[in-house]
Amino acid sequence: MIDLIAFDADDTLWGNENYFYQTQNEYAQILSEYGCKEAVLERLYSTQIKNLKLYGYGIKAYTLSMIEAALSLSFREIPGELIAKILALGAKMLTEPVQPMNHVQHVLENLSKNHDLISITKGDLLDQNRKMKKSGLSKYFSDVIVLSEKDDQAYQQIIEGRSIKAENFLMVGNSMKSDMLPVLNIGGYAAYVPCKYTWEYEKLAESIQHEKLFELNNMKEILDLKFFN
Amino acid sequence: MIDLIAFDADDTLWGNENYFYQTQNEYAQILSEYGCKEAVLERLYSTQIKNLKLYGYGIKAYTLSMIEAALSLSFREIPGELIAKILALGAKMLTEPVQPMNHVQHVLENLSKNHDLISITKGDLLDQNRKMKKSGLSKYFSDVIVLSEKDDQAYQQIIEGRSIKAENFLMVGNSMKSDMLPVLNIGGYAAYVPCKYTWEYEKLAESIQHEKLFELNNMKEILDLKFFN
Repeated sequence: MIDLIAFDADDTLWGNENYFYQTQNEYAQILSEYGCKEAVLERLYSTQIKNLKLYGYGIKAYTLSMIEAALSLSFREIPGELIAKILALGAKMLTEPVQPMNHVQHVLENLSKNHDLISITKGDLLDQNRKMKKSGLSKYFSDVIVLSEKDDQAYQQIIEGRSIKAENFLMVGNSMKSDMLPVLNIGGYAAYVPCKYTWEYEKLAESIQHEKLFELNNMKEILDLKFFN
Repeated sequence: MIDLIAFDADDTLWGNENYFYQTQNEYAQILSEYGCKEAVLERLYSTQIKNLKLYGYGIKAYTLSMIEAALSLSFREIPGELIAKILALGAKMLTEPVQPMNHVQHVLENLSKNHDLISITKGDLLDQNRKMKKSGLSKYFSDVIVLSEKDDQAYQQIIEGRSIKAENFLMVGNSMKSDMLPVLNIGGYAAYVPCKYTWEYEKLAESIQHEKLFELNNMKEILDLKFFN
């Protein structure tokens, strides 16, 4: 019934947003002279969102937005020493270890026996490839797709390129906005696996009710879905 | 005889390195207080190369390296005002117009009638997709592939994924290092189209002599290759 299963990578296969949270805290500390934590993080978030079209997703985009927000918060008075610290925060994120989340290895091992698995993620090409390699999970995937945006059209192209019908496609992820909604829109199945940290921007204002949406408690429950039993 | 023709994008389909040259000049101007043009550009180049593994190719990586080199050249004394100017240089590059080079439209129009054309390029995913869209050339390509590195293995994967033999594959580009050498290594044909500006890093120390390498004077000469007559 399911011919192709796609997994989101960041915060589904491995932790990612936790590094952003950690970095944000250090960033607010570096800029504490120019505003309280809330004010600093609010400016960072609004700068990020403003720059999404220009820079896209990923750590390099995030680092550039961190620098821009710091200049803006300090009325361009920020010393070079602190800009260097912000650059170092970004570089550190790019070299963090990549640890598969609970149950991921087990689920992929199981599903890959009888199904074609791919990974679909947003962000920097180089960085996503680095993380997949570091995670040790590459062997389970026939393809690792990095997109600049996860919308209906992008998913449609992926399944059409493989001659897969939407009703035989399942997407697994932690973002209602990027992993569930567009896949349901094109007629596919979507399995939501919550993550402790999810970026504000990936949340939806209203919850979705859909017969093809499965809201799971954890990754392990994928194996209990009707398709696999 | 040729089943798949791949075109490099930057500096083959459209000008790109010219924007880097222009930006470099403005960058050296901004930093003129901290060193002569040669010294500034040397530091920028060495910073870029040092960061290739961390940041990869593309304008965001370049902007981060411009900031890092500026901090280093000024012993972190550079004022925020100038960092803001450097950020703006990067943002400007990301919104430059994209103009197909001479003969490109004509050659693609001709070849696309009887051949499968794809584009293979390095850099930022979002930015390369933006440029392809802006160029108006998308319609000629069945696929637009953005890689984090153009090596033997990457080309091999592309042709294998399409069940194409190397001897039926032709790559067109302006970089001996990224477009010609790896394709010749795997047994494909390579057509070199020189570009006025080519990044130092993309040049080879020694010239290549190879029976499957065609060194052309311009893009138009692609149509004169034996395969197409």
